[in-house]
Amino acid sequence: MGVFVSTPDRVEIAVIGRQRPAVLEALGAEFTLHEVASLDDIAGSLGPAAERVRGALSNPMIGLSAAMMDALPKLEITTLFGVGLERTDLAAARERGIVVTTTPVLYEDVADTAVVLAMDVSRRITAGDRWVRAGHWAAGGAAASGRRFSGKRAGILGMGRIGRMLAKRLEAFDMQIAYYDPRPAPDVEYRLHRTGVELARESDFLFLCAAGGPGVGHVVDAETLAALGPEGVFVNVARGWLVDEQALVDAVTNGTIGGAGLDVFDDEPNVPQPLVEADNVVLVPHIASNTFETRSDMDQCVIDNIRSWFSTGKAITPVPS
Amino acid sequence: MGVFVSTPDRVEIAVIGRQRPAVLEALGAEFTLHEVASLDDIAGSLGPAAERVRGALSNPMIGLSAAMMDALPKLEITTLFGVGLERTDLAAARERGIVVTTTPVLYEDVADTAVVLAMDVSRRITAGDRWVRAGHWAAGGAAASGRRFSGKRAGILGMGRIGRMLAKRLEAFDMQIAYYDPRPAPDVEYRLHRTGVELARESDFLFLCAAGGPGVGHVVDAETLAALGPEGVFVNVARGWLVDEQALVDAVTNGTIGGAGLDVFDDEPNVPQPLVEADNVVLVPHIASNTFETRSDMDQCVIDNIRSWFSTGKAITPVPS
Repeated sequence: MGVFVSTPDRVEIAVIGRQRPAVLEALGAEFTLHEVASLDDIAGSLGPAAERVRGALSNPMIGLSAAMMDALPKLEITTLFGVGLERTDLAAARERGIVVTTTPVLYEDVADTAVVLAMDVSRRITAGDRWVRAGHWAAGGAAASGRRFSGKRAGILGMGRIGRMLAKRLEAFDMQIAYYDPRPAPDVEYRLHRTGVELARESDFLFLCAAGGPGVGHVVDAETLAALGPEGVFVNVARGWLVDEQALVDAVTNGTIGGAGLDVFDDEPNVPQPLVEADNVVLVPHIASNTFETRSDMDQCVIDNIRSWFSTGKAITPVPS
Repeated sequence: MGVFVSTPDRVEIAVIGRQRPAVLEALGAEFTLHEVASLDDIAGSLGPAAERVRGALSNPMIGLSAAMMDALPKLEITTLFGVGLERTDLAAARERGIVVTTTPVLYEDVADTAVVLAMDVSRRITAGDRWVRAGHWAAGGAAASGRRFSGKRAGILGMGRIGRMLAKRLEAFDMQIAYYDPRPAPDVEYRLHRTGVELARESDFLFLCAAGGPGVGHVVDAETLAALGPEGVFVNVARGWLVDEQALVDAVTNGTIGGAGLDVFDDEPNVPQPLVEADNVVLVPHIASNTFETRSDMDQCVIDNIRSWFSTGKAITPVPS
């Protein structure tokens, strides 16, 4: 990030966490951007500008806490590059009249990621690729068999927008779809189970698509994984901290479940070493929405929200308050 | 494989190529099985039994040539563990009255494999897994972006049973589907292109699902790959020899295409070294139908065909003559 020259008549915006170059370039041409060097000391990082900042760019993994809001008394709008809200204090934002926007343009990619992770684990694609590259096939070895994907039972934890898009995709594979959601979706025809454990017990593939939120504990724990069983595949495209990760490590390495496809982890970018060494897991670096196309759409969404707010007083994709 | 004791009143069956233990066990209990040690000299391998053999177990990669039939003058039925017919001389079989059966129970798995390979390449799943396991994420690296899968243009080379099952799956990802087939499918609504090159030019993902056959040359060559272009992904779940493999190696390593997902190769199990070293390809060891469920169904199909033929004179899944 370059040096931003402060221009008195320009709106000033705090840049919290890593932001995309395209966003910084576009907004930097119209606004004065201030990079926050220390998330723990926003006021100190920004100096006198903290008192003038009217907008902030953040992301769901950092979010916006009440303490951050306190440090930015003139804050009007915060954009999140993503859709998770669990690290943003919406109540505090509402109280202060701060608008929070997300980038609700990534659902298809996340649903796609859930499908490919499930198929990859059950059909041993990444494992097979590793085996071919290591020369085992050429040496005359017989490839290990995977498990069929089509026609199986899919359990979806969280029937929100991603869960629905996932279900639509899985239907084309003739899967039997059921779900658990603390807020049942009356417009959805799939079978609703009473608990996640009950859903897991009736599933070959268990997909975690739940939104995290303040106070949400482990949605998936040792009991859920035991219910999924030794041929079951667990997929997480939600948040790592919604899962008891030690229980997951145990389940994968002990054969309590058949395998796992994981886009998210409890302490990213750190992945537990037993997972790194496991053959029955697929580990990707939080890329569920990381495509050129979607990141570009997300860039534009952030840019449009900031521009719109400071020109018309309206955000494009505000979180409903 | 154990030693099979010849019992005079038992029907004798030649075992050509590697066959599955479950098939050998089931049929070995009812028939006398003779393992063919040398494919080049079936008569010599079998000795006097060659004159008595009435059934044969083979697979599509070996097939059944006219010379093999000449070596087995009493042959009535040959089962192929799979569905490809390009190495079986159907005309010669017809002339001699030999029934050939396949295992038409694997189409869903193959269609699934086509989907997962395409998604895996475009979304960088295997590449991302490799990157995470190598510790690059934990070291603070930024993951490379993939390309969106949903909503893109899919071109299917070969609109047979697998092509149709693939198309059904891709529709759920809102893809625009077109195809090329020398025998157009009048019951299919997808757009038919006049050539494979024209199809490739209009596709983001190009799927090879064509059946090979005697005299079929390269269905995919350098011109096809150039038409697919630098963001295009090529997927092969058909046969390696339907592709000009050197042209594919060049296209992948030069960036003529974006990447490839390959289940089959020209000289299996040998994979060209430049592919083994490439990051934009996913290489799996001919596992498109290799699931426990489908292999079990295929086992049963072979067993049932042999049993049925020798008890009722009818095969279950004969190739239409």
